[in-house]
Amino acid sequence: MSNSETIASLGENESLKRTIARLNLAESALVGPGDDSAVVAATDARFVVTTDTMVEGHDFRLDWSTGYDLGFKAVASNVADVAAMGAVPTSLVVALVVPASTTIHWLESFADGLRDACQQLAPGCGVVGGDLAAGDQVVISVAAHGSLEGHEPVLRSGAQIGDIVAVAGTLGRAACGLALLFSENQDAINAYDDFVNVQKRPQPPIAAGKQAAEAGATSMLDVSDGLAKDANRIAKASGVTIEIDPRMLQGYEAMLEEPARAIGADEKLWVLTGGEDHSLLATFSPDAVIPRAFKPIGVVLPQGAANVMLGAQALPELGWDSING
Amino acid sequence: MSNSETIASLGENESLKRTIARLNLAESALVGPGDDSAVVAATDARFVVTTDTMVEGHDFRLDWSTGYDLGFKAVASNVADVAAMGAVPTSLVVALVVPASTTIHWLESFADGLRDACQQLAPGCGVVGGDLAAGDQVVISVAAHGSLEGHEPVLRSGAQIGDIVAVAGTLGRAACGLALLFSENQDAINAYDDFVNVQKRPQPPIAAGKQAAEAGATSMLDVSDGLAKDANRIAKASGVTIEIDPRMLQGYEAMLEEPARAIGADEKLWVLTGGEDHSLLATFSPDAVIPRAFKPIGVVLPQGAANVMLGAQALPELGWDSING
Repeated sequence: MSNSETIASLGENESLKRTIARLNLAESALVGPGDDSAVVAATDARFVVTTDTMVEGHDFRLDWSTGYDLGFKAVASNVADVAAMGAVPTSLVVALVVPASTTIHWLESFADGLRDACQQLAPGCGVVGGDLAAGDQVVISVAAHGSLEGHEPVLRSGAQIGDIVAVAGTLGRAACGLALLFSENQDAINAYDDFVNVQKRPQPPIAAGKQAAEAGATSMLDVSDGLAKDANRIAKASGVTIEIDPRMLQGYEAMLEEPARAIGADEKLWVLTGGEDHSLLATFSPDAVIPRAFKPIGVVLPQGAANVMLGAQALPELGWDSING
Repeated sequence: MSNSETIASLGENESLKRTIARLNLAESALVGPGDDSAVVAATDARFVVTTDTMVEGHDFRLDWSTGYDLGFKAVASNVADVAAMGAVPTSLVVALVVPASTTIHWLESFADGLRDACQQLAPGCGVVGGDLAAGDQVVISVAAHGSLEGHEPVLRSGAQIGDIVAVAGTLGRAACGLALLFSENQDAINAYDDFVNVQKRPQPPIAAGKQAAEAGATSMLDVSDGLAKDANRIAKASGVTIEIDPRMLQGYEAMLEEPARAIGADEKLWVLTGGEDHSLLATFSPDAVIPRAFKPIGVVLPQGAANVMLGAQALPELGWDSING
């Protein structure tokens, strides 16, 4: 059978069978895909769970992202939310809505992206269940699970006055990649394809989540809606003000100067408001040994007039809103 | 603020806040909604997980189902898959895609449906996380979790020759309700609104799942795609033939005779191929004390030419395909 067949011609059962065959097994799966539910080990008698959804035309475009890219990104964005609790990702369930005219080739590539993202970003983690349905628009909804391995979860609400604010991973690269794609400047897209690739297949620093928990991080989250908006969330939840040192952002900005110049954009805005690198933002006591993956960018102050300061200036809550964009 | 405001005018954060405020707390939630992930207790060091998705125009119509109905149904269909493992539902994550023009009233009703379904069908279970995104078409994707409470999971593959085949819950009522809605025969819809209501807000026998596990059920699944198709699944997974006694289906059919006559339909087909009652189909050793919620409908035979027999006749694998309908 050719791989240009559609899922409508193959039907749900056969399409699912071919997809599942390409996936890696989750190490924690006691019962894997194929029954009404999966059964997953939760050795410390708790599990972490999160869900994140991507919608065609709102979160991605099919002319920019392949099935492989989307499978990869769906895993990356979800396991980053698990890591942001200080947990190790263990298992995923994946709900996929696609037009009935979708080829089995696209679906198999999507499965390959799921598998490779698990293996590269969160070894041991795998897909334990899923659902395939027909719809007008592609929608990818993942629920990801993780193990705290006996640690306490790192919440958004624990930042203490005097803490160091630090970031693991990149800032602004995915936003740069998206701006390059929107520019339709093919020379710039080719020249800076590293950034385009971060947009398509994010590489969040998943292992840094557990390292932060072990180092006693007082708060943490996944920078999914941009530094300005996500720092605001920690500040609000913890009842503090976060002061970011603009000099500490210069390294992130410098990386993006050239592509910004090529398409007439502002790299500072990408660093402050770009979300989809899915980096981790955490706070640590000044006495903590901060894991090497984290780079200090600021400090925690008593709650002031603004939730987040960039140097002496209030930083407004700019960033992504999943309804309004 | 009026409840005719749209989620676009309120934005993601405020819309989510209002929705979450209406939900009940899951008893097992150690960390509830509001952080990157939730943390849920899994006291026997395992958890059961499943996912099921409903798509506007394919699985429901907004002119037939309210937000409340859809929230209720999304919970019912998912916790039935948890119960079908012999587990007790503990927690849900809910991903909702809706047009940005959706009113906050609709969203609040949806949340009320989620809450009421948890409280009525699976007390103690609640929503621990979610995601709200904009899209052209309403898509509801739920991942449900459960606890086996120390029991072994009941798989599809364990049916043994000589076992009794039994059903907990109703058969064909949701299919009858759907046919009534499609008939547009308002008199019949009004006269048989009980069946329409089963279609809109299914009442699966969730507690019967754990009871079956305790009674030593050898196999079980959720009848989500119709008795013919789902009995086939047990037969295939277990390497047996299931023989259903047509006389044992007469009680289910009798309930549906009147509405079938009213709209010129065949109640026997509803009973054999109707899925959305989300009843439980299980097999028990002839020595087992079958829980009272289960009604015997057949026996397990050595694998023959057909996977499922209805009396002396082979029963084809008719039923719902989520891609092709």
